[in-house]
Amino acid sequence: MNITLEQAEAIIAAAKSKATEINTKMNISVVDTGANLVAFARMDGAWLGSVDISLKKAKTAVWFTMDTAALSPLVQPGAPLYNIEHSNGGLITFPGGVVIKNSGGEIIGAIGVSGSTVDDDHEVAEAGATSL
Amino acid sequence: MNITLEQAEAIIAAAKSKATEINTKMNISVVDTGANLVAFARMDGAWLGSVDISLKKAKTAVWFTMDTAALSPLVQPGAPLYNIEHSNGGLITFPGGVVIKNSGGEIIGAIGVSGSTVDDDHEVAEAGATSL
Amino acid sequence: MNITLEQAEAIIAAAKSKATEINTKMNISVVDTGANLVAFARMDGAWLGSVDISLKKAKTAVWFTMDTAALSPLVQPGAPLYNIEHSNGGLITFPGGVVIKNSGGEIIGAIGVSGSTVDDDHEVAEAGATSL
Amino acid sequence: MNITLEQAEAIIAAAKSKATEINTKMNISVVDTGANLVAFARMDGAWLGSVDISLKKAKTAVWFTMDTAALSPLVQPGAPLYNIEHSNGGLITFPGGVVIKNSGGEIIGAIGVSGSTVDDDHEVAEAGATSL
Repeated sequence: MNITLEQAEAIIAAAKSKATEINTKMNISVVDTGANLVAFARMDGAWLGSVDISLKKAKTAVWFTMDTAALSPLVQPGAPLYNIEHSNGGLITFPGGVVIKNSGGEIIGAIGVSGSTVDDDHEVAEAGATSL
Repeated sequence: MNITLEQAEAIIAAAKSKATEINTKMNISVVDTGANLVAFARMDGAWLGSVDISLKKAKTAVWFTMDTAALSPLVQPGAPLYNIEHSNGGLITFPGGVVIKNSGGEIIGAIGVSGSTVDDDHEVAEAGATSL
Repeated sequence: MNITLEQAEAIIAAAKSKATEINTKMNISVVDTGANLVAFARMDGAWLGSVDISLKKAKTAVWFTMDTAALSPLVQPGAPLYNIEHSNGGLITFPGGVVIKNSGGEIIGAIGVSGSTVDDDHEVAEAGATSL
Repeated sequence: MNITLEQAEAIIAAAKSKATEINTKMNISVVDTGANLVAFARMDGAWLGSVDISLKKAKTAVWFTMDTAALSPLVQPGAPLYNIEHSNGGLITFPGGVVIKNSGGEIIGAIGVSGSTVDDDHEVAEAGATSL
């Protein structure tokens, strides 16, 4: 089971809608279960530096089959995965990467959102991921 | 003058339509005048290796304000720009990257398409770029 | 609105003047709104390792439309953007990157300065950015 | 003996003057004998993709203490240095990188120019290098 482009575009549309609702400008990436990009959108005026961050959040979520928010405590100094970000050409381990599941609960991809606070980023990613 | 997300998404829709018409599966990237990604779509079943190629085609077109097809003869062995591809973290200099102009003839971005023959890639990119 | 080379060179001249005044030797980068380099100067005897740092500071400021000093508290262990530096091929998130605005308050680029303490770096960047 | 910033800026000014005279828009890099950037200028409207090319031309010239034009025949298929561009994070081996010598004939740095044909690039680089 792998996300389709049609699903990815619907997820991006839902994420854009939520981003507009909370008055933010987001970069939104959707990757499949192989961590390969399926669809992307940068809202007008969104941070350029967040293109790559949104992609790395989505990839990180798929690479470890968990939301990036779950990784945040594990990567702090002294924690078990300290500096894991040095792998895979760079991870992003703060909130905003969310796994996408189908109706059967299987992971079919992930969304990564970047452009505002990490709370906003996560909220928009969640809105996208749960819109299926 | 810089391309908007709305324009980029319309261009991707036009490119997807052309890709379907000629029975291909494409990766399609649209970048702005600063060579930053605006929108991307990978059609279901399209080559994974073409995600990066479509992006590099779009960036190459903007970086040198010309279609990548115009570069192809210049980069051959013995030609003036031989091995220019080693710059900018990697160029793609075969057809499929096409500059996008507004109605006034100004470049506002570029589209990069990859997933089939270079002739098909260029045709789909052209269909996208001229759909504005 | 994008910074011109003439503006960038005037900014570098102002930054060099401030650097000399406070007895430092600086690397100074100016980028446009697409985070592409416009002008650069390394003062004689300035740290070689600061060539790249000054460039990354300028790019970071444009990528997130804020001074790098504003990012410093956000990227500490336990803070929301911890290890964001792993994105975009490497960020620099300590002081010395300052956005450049035109008289209308629009961001037209950024300056990045590196070669002394971060306080000195920021002071010189600020002197450059506000000299327009 | 190493190039100074004052010399590098004079060389860039001379190169810009030649570029304007022949109606081109250039990216101009000057590096020292350690291949570290000393000064850079991108003329308004010059190709963004040539920022990196001009820098790599200058570095390549210093790394091998010869003009990049001298390397071009050596890197062709079947020639001794075929695909040397894969070293050092990427070389540029076509014309436009020119060593800078002091009055005693010692190499003190190099200039790299990119933004037009390789003949134009070389002419502008030569104008810069010989202006000391």
